[in-house]
Amino acid sequence: MKKQSRRSFLGAGTILSVAGALAALPLLGSAFKKPKGNFVHHVYFWLHNPDSEADKAKLIEGLQTLKKIKEIRLARIGQPASTNRDVIERGYAVSWLLFFDNLDEQEVYQKHPIHLKFVENYSHLWSKVIVYDSVDV
Amino acid sequence: MKKQSRRSFLGAGTILSVAGALAALPLLGSAFKKPKGNFVHHVYFWLHNPDSEADKAKLIEGLQTLKKIKEIRLARIGQPASTNRDVIERGYAVSWLLFFDNLDEQEVYQKHPIHLKFVENYSHLWSKVIVYDSVDV
Repeated sequence: MKKQSRRSFLGAGTILSVAGALAALPLLGSAFKKPKGNFVHHVYFWLHNPDSEADKAKLIEGLQTLKKIKEIRLARIGQPASTNRDVIERGYAVSWLLFFDNLDEQEVYQKHPIHLKFVENYSHLWSKVIVYDSVDV
Repeated sequence: MKKQSRRSFLGAGTILSVAGALAALPLLGSAFKKPKGNFVHHVYFWLHNPDSEADKAKLIEGLQTLKKIKEIRLARIGQPASTNRDVIERGYAVSWLLFFDNLDEQEVYQKHPIHLKFVENYSHLWSKVIVYDSVDV
């Protein structure tokens, strides 16, 4: 009886584990088959006060608010790396990299109230913005 | 007896499934906890012959060879999207976006024989390159 009861216990545990693992598998599949959408939106910000750490932190704070927009598949906030060659642009203060499923989702983001609020509240910080929108070839 | 033997069969099946699922979990974990390294290397290529689809295809062929470099965590080849606003740069022909774990891995990529071969074989195609290297804030 004891042996039987141990086997039943293991059985229940493994079934629960399998249920959890199977629930996770679609995430795994989508992460590898279609990494993060077809549309890459990369924005570089130059600040009015490039030496102001406070202004840079403020801009980053603003970008963080945008992450709530659900159409975004991946978001990364960066700053220039230490690399330094002739071809490398290092004058910007903040890099804002987004992946979207497609052009339409990116358009939703552009017109989203959170995005419009961001522009309203933080655009006084930047002197220049360059945007590179690309789609996978 | 029949009931017992069915339970044993299910037990074996679930144990195999759990083994497979556990093997997959580290991949899932790394994909979500640390999306794709800390270092973003984004290169934009302008062509000598911007209207040449053949030259563009040739450059893309060259970039494809770079994907074999194992330090690359994510690679995407893009072309300008249809978006068109004042702040959007659309003059480049090809976008080459890479994620690395860190600066050191990116340096390995720069000096990799496959990368040096790429520059040797394909650099005649481009007239200008702009590189943005950024690290997560």
